[in-house]
Amino acid sequence: MNLKLVGRTLGIIWTLEALFMLPSLGLAIYDREPGVIRAFLITIGLLLLLSGGLWLLCRSKQSEPSYTREGMVTVGFSWISMSALGCLPFCISGQIPSYVDALFEMVSGFTTTGASILRDVEALSRALLYWRSFSHWLGGMGMLVFILAVVPGSRHAAGYNLNLMRAESPGPSVSKLTPRMGQTAKTLYFLYFILTVLCVIFLLAGGMPLFDSLCTAFGTAGTGGFGIRNDSMAGYSPYLQNVCTVFMALFGVNFGVFYLLLLKQLSAVFRDEEVRMYFGILIVSTLLITLNIMPMTDGGFWASLRHAAFQVSSITTTTGFCTTDFNLWPSFSKAILFTLMIFGACAGSTGGGIKTARLLILMKEMRRNIRRTLRPRSVQTIRVNERPIDENVVRGVNAYMAAYWALILTSFILVSLDGFSFETNLSAVIACFNNIGPGFDMVGPAANYADFSNGVKLILTADMLLGRLELFPLLTLFSRYTWSRKL
Amino acid sequence: MNLKLVGRTLGIIWTLEALFMLPSLGLAIYDREPGVIRAFLITIGLLLLLSGGLWLLCRSKQSEPSYTREGMVTVGFSWISMSALGCLPFCISGQIPSYVDALFEMVSGFTTTGASILRDVEALSRALLYWRSFSHWLGGMGMLVFILAVVPGSRHAAGYNLNLMRAESPGPSVSKLTPRMGQTAKTLYFLYFILTVLCVIFLLAGGMPLFDSLCTAFGTAGTGGFGIRNDSMAGYSPYLQNVCTVFMALFGVNFGVFYLLLLKQLSAVFRDEEVRMYFGILIVSTLLITLNIMPMTDGGFWASLRHAAFQVSSITTTTGFCTTDFNLWPSFSKAILFTLMIFGACAGSTGGGIKTARLLILMKEMRRNIRRTLRPRSVQTIRVNERPIDENVVRGVNAYMAAYWALILTSFILVSLDGFSFETNLSAVIACFNNIGPGFDMVGPAANYADFSNGVKLILTADMLLGRLELFPLLTLFSRYTWSRKL
Repeated sequence: MNLKLVGRTLGIIWTLEALFMLPSLGLAIYDREPGVIRAFLITIGLLLLLSGGLWLLCRSKQSEPSYTREGMVTVGFSWISMSALGCLPFCISGQIPSYVDALFEMVSGFTTTGASILRDVEALSRALLYWRSFSHWLGGMGMLVFILAVVPGSRHAAGYNLNLMRAESPGPSVSKLTPRMGQTAKTLYFLYFILTVLCVIFLLAGGMPLFDSLCTAFGTAGTGGFGIRNDSMAGYSPYLQNVCTVFMALFGVNFGVFYLLLLKQLSAVFRDEEVRMYFGILIVSTLLITLNIMPMTDGGFWASLRHAAFQVSSITTTTGFCTTDFNLWPSFSKAILFTLMIFGACAGSTGGGIKTARLLILMKEMRRNIRRTLRPRSVQTIRVNERPIDENVVRGVNAYMAAYWALILTSFILVSLDGFSFETNLSAVIACFNNIGPGFDMVGPAANYADFSNGVKLILTADMLLGRLELFPLLTLFSRYTWSRKL
Repeated sequence: MNLKLVGRTLGIIWTLEALFMLPSLGLAIYDREPGVIRAFLITIGLLLLLSGGLWLLCRSKQSEPSYTREGMVTVGFSWISMSALGCLPFCISGQIPSYVDALFEMVSGFTTTGASILRDVEALSRALLYWRSFSHWLGGMGMLVFILAVVPGSRHAAGYNLNLMRAESPGPSVSKLTPRMGQTAKTLYFLYFILTVLCVIFLLAGGMPLFDSLCTAFGTAGTGGFGIRNDSMAGYSPYLQNVCTVFMALFGVNFGVFYLLLLKQLSAVFRDEEVRMYFGILIVSTLLITLNIMPMTDGGFWASLRHAAFQVSSITTTTGFCTTDFNLWPSFSKAILFTLMIFGACAGSTGGGIKTARLLILMKEMRRNIRRTLRPRSVQTIRVNERPIDENVVRGVNAYMAAYWALILTSFILVSLDGFSFETNLSAVIACFNNIGPGFDMVGPAANYADFSNGVKLILTADMLLGRLELFPLLTLFSRYTWSRKL
């Protein structure tokens, strides 16, 4: 294990985290909140001190070999430490006194979950609200991808970069937009930045205040879902809600598709099987829910359509904003939302869940099995967008699914120790694991995660991290192969 | 498609079904119930008429080629027709007036689910109760396996028999106990018969009436779970409950293991990974639940242990008998039971669920993926009991899992149309799909499936069949490959 390489990358991450706290510090100074200013200053100081120390420990002149495991370990450790340190401002300022609560809130931010332990989010300082929402934006595309985009000419082997990217980007296989990893990362962040700015502009145009627009756009872009109001998006105008609906849906699309749009390869976009399936799911679900909730919604078809489209977009992309308390919807609509929570958005987007690309591969795997059962001697490859899928990717998807259900069931059993309802426990685990935020019943849109015990909060925190990093970067931390000397 | 071969096998199935109704007819005559006698006579007549007609249509002098698809189609059609015809006595006698209800009850019997639409099971005639419980026994090991065991010297290709067996026996791969299929089927039924007789003897020894003993033994052997009393097993003595606990656990074991015991290969039994995992799951779950329910159970540790062991054995083997209303247990115990519902018993047993053998392969697939992530160039085979598992079996397991969750989520959404609670809907689907019987909330042990609409009952009926036949024999009925002329 090349620990020095891991250490150097961690050092860069912590320095960047300190820099990213500066806007919040500025806001705290502007709002004249001495407690919050002090909290941010202490945290920033600590981050810089730690990364300085790590840099001294881990500097090295010659280039060292690195393997997949270094990439995995870096991603695992950087996400854990980013959260463990990033939550300090909440604690130190005393606005979230319990460290476990603050950690839950921070992990929920970075993993773009949006689940909150705050009973009254409006009581939080603006500086902290900003940091909380900004963590969505950072976590959405990934801090390591950011490093690849901005830290020039690293001496790292290209393999290390590819492995960082592979471990941090959602989806069964990383889509290299350009042959060089650094260039790909730059392109991704460029598209991400442009789309976020567009979202802010559309929100401002609807009369939303600048602060609200920024926080909402961060939550939308990262498919996070932290609201800055107690009623999430319910208090905003229908126009603003619709803007959110559209942008959430867009941020759930594979960014490779936007790159194709940039290259004006329109026909490739329309033929993309994942995009077609993703929008297919969105449209069908929206229509079914619209019809189902119409009898109970004031405002008839159009209001139902607005709420349905917003919620479907919010849940499928695993954002978690709400315009209404969907926990009160009929069972049929709730069952659809529950399924969408599991499905998630496209691979290569900022969304969580299983991802449409994996669903596509699983669907084709099923069909292939029927064919193989009937004609045992036939050899069949799975094709997506007319390209054959490597069998190792298919195996990876299957192993992912096995680990996915195993971890969900285990978490469900442990979370049940708190004794809340079946629906609360299962939907809390599903909502955290898939990085959605609100679930049903006691963790529904009108409620929060405050009532769980500390032990359960830590389990849900682990679930959020496992879900965001798609299990294996964290699971490998516990494998003896990672830590053995030989390879 | 060799339809004549399929037709001939269906004819045999129907004739056998008519023969298997004779004990019930006898019981109806003994109890002097003219309505029930008439119902059985009409059904038996119809079955014989239909199979005679089919025999005339499908007889053929030369031996025809057959492929996997004939096996699949035979299994699919025989289970559907067996249920569609077998439920007629319930309807005709007027004791279950609705055909949909009767079909639900019959499919629940043959698939060894044990879910009931009867609000008052004690109101049913003994002849019908007997037929209902006996269907568990027939469905547990499978009617087609029975044919292979008893119909001598069939002109069918050996491949056809193997495919029948493969499609009807639970588990990822069929275990050939002996080189010849007919001999394997005979051995299986021999073991099945002996164990059932043993179970009856132990029950009789505890003072249970003969009729009750037979019905309970059929439900235990087939891991079915139809009770003949409204309180299932709660009214019987602790001794009788413990006998059931032990026999349910035994019938959840791979029958290949009993064959090894017969051959006195004890060490192979103790080293068998599936058996170890299966009993490991049973023991750990029992202990956890015992500790969890102790504070609320009269009778302290030992009574808690008895209830916990009974319920864990009943749910893991997917039987579904109850000694207490576990719907009232704490969330933690319920979450464990929910997970056990999904896990199920060993492959090659009469139980349902995913099966321990598949869990074992999935676990190893996960571990392999971690290793492959870390050492991309290494080639790894999955080994169970030191034997490498064919990659096609692993792929089959993965495709099974994908189809499993897809069908469960789809059913869950459709069942939600009736508007009952989240817990009711999800546990009803899980309980039917995994052939358990009771779920939670409105379909808990103290309740039944009577309140669902006809549409939902039909969906749950389909789920029971899909679960028992492990999806693909039914799914292939809808594949164009099955019905295309070319192969």
